[in-house]
Amino acid sequence: MRKFILFPFLLLVGLAHAQLSKNEIFTTSEAQLRVSLIEFREYLSLPNNGKVPEDIARNLEWTQAALESRGFKTRVLIGNGVPHLFAHGKMDPNKKTILVYMQVDGQPVDSAAWNQENPYIPELMEEMDGKWEPINWNFLDGKINPEWKIFARSASDSKGPTMTFFSALDILKQKGIEPTVNLKFILDFQEEISSPELAPIVAANKDLFQADGILIMDGTRHFSNLPNLAFGARGIVTATLTVFGPANDLHSGQYGNFAPNPAFQLSRLLAAMKDEEGKVLIPGFYEGVNISEADFEAMSQIPEDNQEMAHEMGFAEAEKVGRNYQEALQFPSLNIRGLKSGWTGAEVRTLIPAEAVVEIDIRTVKETPNERQLALLKRFILDQGFYLIEGEEPTEEERKKYPKIASLQTRNGSQPFRAEMDTEFAKWLESGMRHVFGDQFIKTRQTGGSQPMAPFINILGAPAVSVRIPNPDNNIHGPNENIRIGNYLEGIQTCLGLLTQDF
Amino acid sequence: MRKFILFPFLLLVGLAHAQLSKNEIFTTSEAQLRVSLIEFREYLSLPNNGKVPEDIARNLEWTQAALESRGFKTRVLIGNGVPHLFAHGKMDPNKKTILVYMQVDGQPVDSAAWNQENPYIPELMEEMDGKWEPINWNFLDGKINPEWKIFARSASDSKGPTMTFFSALDILKQKGIEPTVNLKFILDFQEEISSPELAPIVAANKDLFQADGILIMDGTRHFSNLPNLAFGARGIVTATLTVFGPANDLHSGQYGNFAPNPAFQLSRLLAAMKDEEGKVLIPGFYEGVNISEADFEAMSQIPEDNQEMAHEMGFAEAEKVGRNYQEALQFPSLNIRGLKSGWTGAEVRTLIPAEAVVEIDIRTVKETPNERQLALLKRFILDQGFYLIEGEEPTEEERKKYPKIASLQTRNGSQPFRAEMDTEFAKWLESGMRHVFGDQFIKTRQTGGSQPMAPFINILGAPAVSVRIPNPDNNIHGPNENIRIGNYLEGIQTCLGLLTQDF
Repeated sequence: MRKFILFPFLLLVGLAHAQLSKNEIFTTSEAQLRVSLIEFREYLSLPNNGKVPEDIARNLEWTQAALESRGFKTRVLIGNGVPHLFAHGKMDPNKKTILVYMQVDGQPVDSAAWNQENPYIPELMEEMDGKWEPINWNFLDGKINPEWKIFARSASDSKGPTMTFFSALDILKQKGIEPTVNLKFILDFQEEISSPELAPIVAANKDLFQADGILIMDGTRHFSNLPNLAFGARGIVTATLTVFGPANDLHSGQYGNFAPNPAFQLSRLLAAMKDEEGKVLIPGFYEGVNISEADFEAMSQIPEDNQEMAHEMGFAEAEKVGRNYQEALQFPSLNIRGLKSGWTGAEVRTLIPAEAVVEIDIRTVKETPNERQLALLKRFILDQGFYLIEGEEPTEEERKKYPKIASLQTRNGSQPFRAEMDTEFAKWLESGMRHVFGDQFIKTRQTGGSQPMAPFINILGAPAVSVRIPNPDNNIHGPNENIRIGNYLEGIQTCLGLLTQDF
Repeated sequence: MRKFILFPFLLLVGLAHAQLSKNEIFTTSEAQLRVSLIEFREYLSLPNNGKVPEDIARNLEWTQAALESRGFKTRVLIGNGVPHLFAHGKMDPNKKTILVYMQVDGQPVDSAAWNQENPYIPELMEEMDGKWEPINWNFLDGKINPEWKIFARSASDSKGPTMTFFSALDILKQKGIEPTVNLKFILDFQEEISSPELAPIVAANKDLFQADGILIMDGTRHFSNLPNLAFGARGIVTATLTVFGPANDLHSGQYGNFAPNPAFQLSRLLAAMKDEEGKVLIPGFYEGVNISEADFEAMSQIPEDNQEMAHEMGFAEAEKVGRNYQEALQFPSLNIRGLKSGWTGAEVRTLIPAEAVVEIDIRTVKETPNERQLALLKRFILDQGFYLIEGEEPTEEERKKYPKIASLQTRNGSQPFRAEMDTEFAKWLESGMRHVFGDQFIKTRQTGGSQPMAPFINILGAPAVSVRIPNPDNNIHGPNENIRIGNYLEGIQTCLGLLTQDF
């Protein structure tokens, strides 16, 4: 009886994996690694600030050539002056179609804060006595240590993941194997500024983008650095709030105890927004979020030690919005990302500052839409007694009339999204991961970061899941961004696993 | 009966004023003005950053020559490498002795922020259509408009007041009149960095500095621009507080709701320090300050419209520490002069910042000594649950152990001082002012700004009062510092009034 049930199951598994065995995936990816990294180095050496048209142009040219040389047809879609690169391969009507999303641009760099001179000249590095030291790129000719890293802007976010996908395609071509799915690509050149033109482009070219599932080649792996599928990502909105004090900076001796200080007014407002435990006090902020016990149970299975995570990041205690880290990510968050008033450090001077500025970001989830969270923030500021001006500076009349004046500029960024975990697409992804990594991979319900994916989902009606490749200690967005060679290699293996599984 | 009483009174008044009538003071000062301004221009053209030894040397040479040419004996007292210029005239044992304090150095300049090219090349300017335009210095040969201004670093703070004193001496010499008091001078070359060597110099030369009263030729006039004696000035202490969050900036999506944000921790701390009305909530902060009804009554006589002042400075309502502006200055104040965390504006990035810094200044009064206020601040921060580290960065162990970590660096600046308003010295000052200005002058119990005078008072035991000459719109410390010609002229008249009154 037992045998009878197992037999056809094993047979099916055997068939499904026939195109490339786990062993072949490992040997071919290792053989391809050196060539892949050389091309990766070249790709990283192109500056890629999405706000700089020349940067966009050079990266467009490079990626277009990379796709065409791999046999894909490309098409540049211009939205409001910004290019988006679409590509597709052979369309077999008997196969399902996957739309692969790739991010080309990276965060701006503050070179002075990096250990290397130029964040666009990639460095291959080895850790020696706790310090990362550059090693010669010729070392790639010998045995490649998976613990080495490549340091450069966009190494992990997200030129690395893109290159691993390209390398998987190269291996399949060498082997004469067709991917099990039809492939479409969309390359985004303004992800770090929330892809303002992506939604209109997709809306205007709906048929072109039509797919059965969307694969997002972006995002960092879970803390455990296990291979990782992520079924959702939080959205993001940002706000700049400026509180106005006196019209000019005033001498703090002559007017201290008389002129109101905007930095104190701002501090009181911010203090009222969030309590000591990290819980946001803006009424309605969490409304609609409902984590089932089953969801929480699944999250609790993910191997992570929250206390150890906190200690590794250098703090004693985590905030208490969720019962653990995974649950915390299911809720919207409110963050101060920047604060400035007067002068600090060597520049300090004894003045009552004329202004105090805070930069806020709010991460949203499907149940707490971006627009609603911004409206709640604005309502809260008004309820705290602030008068919000329309322009950049209060008028003389406004200054005379209102004791607490501020300006609020908001930006609606990426929408949140979350795919169900039981679709055919989800099963295809899971079988690909299982083929390569057995049970050593993680499915996360929703990750904390944001990706500009909502337009695809809402307009195309296809589920979107992100395949996470980079190591969690990759310093994305900050100085010394890097990718671990071992992760890069597993990225190629992940893509090979997926592209050889039946959908 | 009435006549009998009035007669000797009028006679005494007549005797006291015999040396130089009000009319003579006015005519001689106007006649001297052009020559005085030419010498002033030369003095202003010497750069005078107290941290630059060459600047100090050139100003020392100039002031030494200026005093010696006026018949004073000079002596350079070196303290820790920094010169202080002492001078004295003839010492008549039948006269009282006044020690005149003069500030030579000025704040550093940020030339780019000035309207003129070089803040050390003085410009004579006239207001035309609301804008200050340079006019030729030859205009001084004709009728001099009291509304003209001279723009240069230290025009008001405090080379202007020094020059008016020198010019009064020149007039007396021309008239063959001896001052009614013996004169000593101390010239300070590091006032803007809180005169670090002045106290030791005074302590080591106590006999040399001995005087019956100290005249401080520094400080800006009251808002009304009426001639002004100030009997006290607040002291100042400063503090830099850094709150530590995660060891590195973290991605606000990946760790938002998990990693504590130091900018929120700092905001809560600052919000707890001061209420909406501007009252400091640090326990004991105001302890010892006691404003009598008589004091308050005298302050209320000073002609100022607090609401109008607030509106002119661009805010609707003043803080409520005092019942009016003058009373507010009798209390210690707590000011946020700088705030910084993460990035703002074009540099903004979606991170949870690793640190948040606040720069604080506390103005102190005689009853709330500097050291006590700093201790109260530190106690308050500890009571709010912060662990204060000793070094620059918390250790790994400290990070694991304490949920709220900060570093506090404090600096003790000028001490507060306040002279009684009913001494013989005070009466001499008042009679000099009254002789020239009638009842059109102001006595302020204590002004808001700080001056490094406490060493004189504490060590010499003499009352110190500052004679305020510059116009309140003089932009001291900032760009476009200036002095109004009318104020400069009244400065000469003030000094003539004092130097011809019997002490």
